[in-house]
Amino acid sequence: MTTTSKKAKKLLNFYSGLKPLNEIMEELKPETGILDDVLLPKPTSWDAQSVEKRRSFIEERTGNKLNYLRKDNEFPSPDNYRGNIENYIGMTCVPTGIIGPLHIKGTEAKGDFYVPLATSEGALIASYHRGAKATRLSGGISCVCLTEGVQRTPLFRFNNLSEVGSFLRWILDNIDIFKKIVHENSKHAILEDVRINIEGNQVLLIFEYTTGDASGQNMVTFCTEAVCKFIIHHTPIKPKYWFIESNYSGDKKATAVSFTNVRGKKVTAEVVVKRDVAKKILFAEPQEIWQYWESSSVAAVQSVSIGMQGHFANGLTAIFMACGQDVACISEAYVGITRMEVTENNDLYVTVTLPSLMVGTVGGGTELPTQKECLQLIGCSGKGKARKFAEICAATVLAGELSIAAAIASGNFSKAHKIFGRKKK
Amino acid sequence: MTTTSKKAKKLLNFYSGLKPLNEIMEELKPETGILDDVLLPKPTSWDAQSVEKRRSFIEERTGNKLNYLRKDNEFPSPDNYRGNIENYIGMTCVPTGIIGPLHIKGTEAKGDFYVPLATSEGALIASYHRGAKATRLSGGISCVCLTEGVQRTPLFRFNNLSEVGSFLRWILDNIDIFKKIVHENSKHAILEDVRINIEGNQVLLIFEYTTGDASGQNMVTFCTEAVCKFIIHHTPIKPKYWFIESNYSGDKKATAVSFTNVRGKKVTAEVVVKRDVAKKILFAEPQEIWQYWESSSVAAVQSVSIGMQGHFANGLTAIFMACGQDVACISEAYVGITRMEVTENNDLYVTVTLPSLMVGTVGGGTELPTQKECLQLIGCSGKGKARKFAEICAATVLAGELSIAAAIASGNFSKAHKIFGRKKK
Amino acid sequence: MTTTSKKAKKLLNFYSGLKPLNEIMEELKPETGILDDVLLPKPTSWDAQSVEKRRSFIEERTGNKLNYLRKDNEFPSPDNYRGNIENYIGMTCVPTGIIGPLHIKGTEAKGDFYVPLATSEGALIASYHRGAKATRLSGGISCVCLTEGVQRTPLFRFNNLSEVGSFLRWILDNIDIFKKIVHENSKHAILEDVRINIEGNQVLLIFEYTTGDASGQNMVTFCTEAVCKFIIHHTPIKPKYWFIESNYSGDKKATAVSFTNVRGKKVTAEVVVKRDVAKKILFAEPQEIWQYWESSSVAAVQSVSIGMQGHFANGLTAIFMACGQDVACISEAYVGITRMEVTENNDLYVTVTLPSLMVGTVGGGTELPTQKECLQLIGCSGKGKARKFAEICAATVLAGELSIAAAIASGNFSKAHKIFGRKKK
Amino acid sequence: MTTTSKKAKKLLNFYSGLKPLNEIMEELKPETGILDDVLLPKPTSWDAQSVEKRRSFIEERTGNKLNYLRKDNEFPSPDNYRGNIENYIGMTCVPTGIIGPLHIKGTEAKGDFYVPLATSEGALIASYHRGAKATRLSGGISCVCLTEGVQRTPLFRFNNLSEVGSFLRWILDNIDIFKKIVHENSKHAILEDVRINIEGNQVLLIFEYTTGDASGQNMVTFCTEAVCKFIIHHTPIKPKYWFIESNYSGDKKATAVSFTNVRGKKVTAEVVVKRDVAKKILFAEPQEIWQYWESSSVAAVQSVSIGMQGHFANGLTAIFMACGQDVACISEAYVGITRMEVTENNDLYVTVTLPSLMVGTVGGGTELPTQKECLQLIGCSGKGKARKFAEICAATVLAGELSIAAAIASGNFSKAHKIFGRKKK
Repeated sequence: MTTTSKKAKKLLNFYSGLKPLNEIMEELKPETGILDDVLLPKPTSWDAQSVEKRRSFIEERTGNKLNYLRKDNEFPSPDNYRGNIENYIGMTCVPTGIIGPLHIKGTEAKGDFYVPLATSEGALIASYHRGAKATRLSGGISCVCLTEGVQRTPLFRFNNLSEVGSFLRWILDNIDIFKKIVHENSKHAILEDVRINIEGNQVLLIFEYTTGDASGQNMVTFCTEAVCKFIIHHTPIKPKYWFIESNYSGDKKATAVSFTNVRGKKVTAEVVVKRDVAKKILFAEPQEIWQYWESSSVAAVQSVSIGMQGHFANGLTAIFMACGQDVACISEAYVGITRMEVTENNDLYVTVTLPSLMVGTVGGGTELPTQKECLQLIGCSGKGKARKFAEICAATVLAGELSIAAAIASGNFSKAHKIFGRKKK
Repeated sequence: MTTTSKKAKKLLNFYSGLKPLNEIMEELKPETGILDDVLLPKPTSWDAQSVEKRRSFIEERTGNKLNYLRKDNEFPSPDNYRGNIENYIGMTCVPTGIIGPLHIKGTEAKGDFYVPLATSEGALIASYHRGAKATRLSGGISCVCLTEGVQRTPLFRFNNLSEVGSFLRWILDNIDIFKKIVHENSKHAILEDVRINIEGNQVLLIFEYTTGDASGQNMVTFCTEAVCKFIIHHTPIKPKYWFIESNYSGDKKATAVSFTNVRGKKVTAEVVVKRDVAKKILFAEPQEIWQYWESSSVAAVQSVSIGMQGHFANGLTAIFMACGQDVACISEAYVGITRMEVTENNDLYVTVTLPSLMVGTVGGGTELPTQKECLQLIGCSGKGKARKFAEICAATVLAGELSIAAAIASGNFSKAHKIFGRKKK
Repeated sequence: MTTTSKKAKKLLNFYSGLKPLNEIMEELKPETGILDDVLLPKPTSWDAQSVEKRRSFIEERTGNKLNYLRKDNEFPSPDNYRGNIENYIGMTCVPTGIIGPLHIKGTEAKGDFYVPLATSEGALIASYHRGAKATRLSGGISCVCLTEGVQRTPLFRFNNLSEVGSFLRWILDNIDIFKKIVHENSKHAILEDVRINIEGNQVLLIFEYTTGDASGQNMVTFCTEAVCKFIIHHTPIKPKYWFIESNYSGDKKATAVSFTNVRGKKVTAEVVVKRDVAKKILFAEPQEIWQYWESSSVAAVQSVSIGMQGHFANGLTAIFMACGQDVACISEAYVGITRMEVTENNDLYVTVTLPSLMVGTVGGGTELPTQKECLQLIGCSGKGKARKFAEICAATVLAGELSIAAAIASGNFSKAHKIFGRKKK
Repeated sequence: MTTTSKKAKKLLNFYSGLKPLNEIMEELKPETGILDDVLLPKPTSWDAQSVEKRRSFIEERTGNKLNYLRKDNEFPSPDNYRGNIENYIGMTCVPTGIIGPLHIKGTEAKGDFYVPLATSEGALIASYHRGAKATRLSGGISCVCLTEGVQRTPLFRFNNLSEVGSFLRWILDNIDIFKKIVHENSKHAILEDVRINIEGNQVLLIFEYTTGDASGQNMVTFCTEAVCKFIIHHTPIKPKYWFIESNYSGDKKATAVSFTNVRGKKVTAEVVVKRDVAKKILFAEPQEIWQYWESSSVAAVQSVSIGMQGHFANGLTAIFMACGQDVACISEAYVGITRMEVTENNDLYVTVTLPSLMVGTVGGGTELPTQKECLQLIGCSGKGKARKFAEICAATVLAGELSIAAAIASGNFSKAHKIFGRKKK
């Protein structure tokens, strides 16, 4: 989760280019006077009429149509899924619900959001919805996309250290050329730096990219391949063998490297839940919720994992499925930190940090019929939306962390699953 | 991934109860004389006619219908999704393809399987399909579900060590009563042991269950709550506070505890890919594929993660989505080990081990319309199928590990994504 | 740090065999009426006279002589170091100081201890000494040696899973014989269980021993070799190859396996530091010290490590060096957990847990001249003392954790190092 | 273990400043024509005469005296240990032996070295000595100190993200001033960068230093304190509280952050052990030794640790003790990677990489009587020697990794400990 001062400055300038930094910082503060005419009607009713009422309400509020989600629109022919699937046989249909409005005070996501979540696990949406309510009543969730980057890490094996040294000397002299090659091969990818990791006669070149609004795994593969071809052709010292990816980049797995730097987007979000809101909506005192956070943090450390959080994976998986993300990236994106503190006013400060949110609003599954509708619902379809989407993901995760901690702290965890996790009789 | 000798013996007796162990072991060996009349027709054509041909072929071969996947059947009313979703607004539709036949020589999964995978990432299915082909031509994948267990870990905080000691004495005297309470609260859950973890005045009780054919997270919550209520009521030493889950169980996160023991099912699978098959189907020599495995394993260690594997998450996420599993569990299930060796005959031995496969064939999303169809396709719908399903998951993962390693080793990784990862023009 | 219920019961019975459990538990409680006539004279003076005064005081109090530490006694001839060193050229001499008295309320260590620490790092002893003082004035440190175990993990590689299955069946049938072989090969080692870890065609047998009062690495090597020779000779399925240690046991490295189970001794210790003591001796409010613990715990998680503690390694290394332990084991023993809480009375609860204390009071370097004197100082030389020594280690570590946290919280960390970490002018 | 391209270039320029890079690279290659008149006489005899012969031989070869190690010189008065110890009572004496000559082809360490090791563990020195012999007969160990850096990471807690943003803006504008403050406060410390890690309302500033020839922990503490005082005084946004060290720097613990970047020195070393040397000196074929490496690497991954190595801690602890290093740093320095491959000539390539070698040749315990003698033995006492010392550490570690792997592979591991790990009868 670390950023060099150079990279941090660059980011700061980006923000300052948008508007003065103090204005941006001002906008992160919680809001007062949240209005209530935006509440979802009959959230936990399952009858067809209630469902339709809910849909219409959202369509009206967001100005989007839910035709594919309703299965009203006829789906396009299989041909259209080329690029997303092979050996196609049909569509897996996953129940999808909505939470919110989630009130966000982000650098890009601003205002009320109805966030679509696809899941088959009862109680999940009810819990996140409750978290959305409690945070909204407390003035909303502040959110900043802190930094971004996607990696490809080719590996080169030589005979000995002496060859490695000569190779790297040449590499370091040619980084500007590599950047040019990347520029020629992609409209969106930018090669930010090439970092170096020597281990005996094996060397990793960590290509660090930004990839615009795509999550970018394919983009960085193609660009890195182009650079590697140049390297292999021109380097005075040929490797014994080389591979385009060394399995160091953290693709589809949680790694300390991704956690301690960034992979995709790094986002942090925070809220101060007012004590009376906690008691009324979450049935728990801030002190009790905090106590659970503290105790369970130690237990999490005892289990030996990366990061320290409750169930980021639940909300993220649901939003990734609904919104056409690469769901397998949950294996890397689920990692992060949740922290709580009781403020001087006995309110509850809650913050989450997600250092490896691999998300995109173009490419991948983002153009599929229902997925595009879901992205549109939150104003995140297409270019210029990836950072906004990342902020919405983080805010959703925060709502879920708050809600589950409160449920366990107050002894309602099991009860919620008994109500929502079982079939009707 | 460790099992006590007592637990191992129990498992062995279970297997031996099915049939003599040497027969089971004999059945794990690769098959000769695999037939080819089962090959999927036109796997990578997207036109409607090819798709329909593929569906009909599978329906015929497996004796199941794909009506919901085809969207021919009308979906049930929202009311039916109670227990799976709240605030319902519609169905997220994820493109679904098929790989195979994947030939498995398991303790429960035996024969040819057409495995459904839901994804929006181009090239994924083509790659797994290729792996299925190479392993089948080499005699199939051997597979054993080694052990199983699901945990809930309540936490108790006392004033001091002295109280902890007295509390635990009472706990250890009452474990048989706890087992009885579990038995009374669930038809399927069995409390296998209660392990203990003391950290100063805080103590974790690790409730270790088996949960039949359900993945069982809710089941173990309800049972543990029933036991905890008994504990709180009867213990002579009351805790200052307690929580039903300490965040030690590894729910929705990769932990060393789950990796070094078991969570859900632990399965291992293996295959010996013949050299000529490798060359013909995978365009690489066994030695080259192995070289990639070896080099990339070191790089994976350099990235600091749990386990050592390529992209378990890709195949697992796709099969979890198609088959109604709790997809958020990818955050724990993706962990494992891939290992390769070149045999004396210059063939390629490949093995995968997955210690934390949280899967079920009853409950959760397994009764949803398309999900049930997908489970039926592989003969895994309903009771008595969870271990079989776990073996199919592991075999699928193996096919994917083989295929990606070969692609990177042979320099075809980028090419495959260029072919399958882009929209048609 | 987990114990099965069976192992926990066994341990409880061991304690109960000593005296009634409630008496033991009663003895863990902090003491009142600590006397002050045992304070170390002139602790931080360096002149020869003060040093001698200090030595005499300790000799008198503990009834032991410090002749070798003083270099008064002539050292034995090199011949006597056979078994400890080869290619001998002389003695490295490490400055050694004393802290305390450290007041311990353990199950085996009871009363006041002057703990010898060897180090070349200024401020270290002053800091631990301060921690000892603060904990003693608060009634002393409670301490329990919770469980113990030492591992050897031979590895066996077969051709395939089928062979692994047959091999393990035979292993599980012969564990009692293995226990007998161990018994015949060692007076002290007891084989408690053989756990199993299958990974494809490779299987680990985790031999779990207790080793009496020796740290036991050699003992378990010899015993495991004897068993393995029996295995190789008698097993109906021969492995392709095997090794006596797979590098799974955690020898000379921190592993999650050791941390989540036990390696050597697992000990936990606690103290409630009274608020007035904290303010007077540590120059900080309990709330401030706690605040540092909480903030820094999150940062420790951000750095990705095993456990969560400040500087266990400092005190442990110093006591290991002084007392003839295998100092290289610091690489495994340094791991653990420190936790703090502010009590209702605004006092500070502090606890440490060390799950992998590889220590012994016989064998290794424990008979070397100065090392034996140091062990005698704390009544830990020879048989029946290993658990007591482990408790003293844990209590020492606790004193250090308290002191450093207070130093950082109060802004005195840098100052202490300026005073004690620099040469006199 | 990663280096940015900027940092890598800087390092390369440093090397090139010494002499042309291709010359340096040339010098890394193994030597032919190693002479044998430098062999240690009677290495494993313990009688007084043999010991004296050995000492005289080394004194003659290295031109240094071993008076303190012999205990011939009278030790200075306790007053001289001020800055190294408090509450002094005497000297812990640790048996010390010698290995070698270890032949090194480093960027700074060049030629034959007799390396002093202090330990009480029998067989340790014999094993490292054997490794030294085998690597020397194969032309010596190539070695490069790749990069360096020491961290202090103060922590600042604010009320919210908005304040964090404003604070960081000010920080980023003032980094040059921080560098100047560091320059004014220390002759040796250079502040290379300040990296940033935001987690909600808590922010870490990672001060990255180089510290000349001192290991530098105190130096970076004093400098960081000076900068923090400036920050607190001048920042327009005051933190709620702050601490000089957040426990993120990896002080006295293994962390992924240190492992994946650098802490202290990062060094890599390699050797190609000739097949006939392996067979004659190590009693094993390269293929067998490699097989052990491969199998045990997987088992190491199964145990979940940072890095992948055999017993770095053994050799490092022994050299740290003998040479006056901060021995508690073994808890961080023991981490790294060992890798082996069988070359086309059936020789054995072995490499080790140590990313967190906290070492120094000035300050700390380096001026103590025996410690200084030991540093002089290897030409590493005083200024300009720290990188050379780091290379000797790495080469020693490599010798040990080779020897233990061969011992286990050939079935001699237990035997060696029976011969050297037991007292004479």
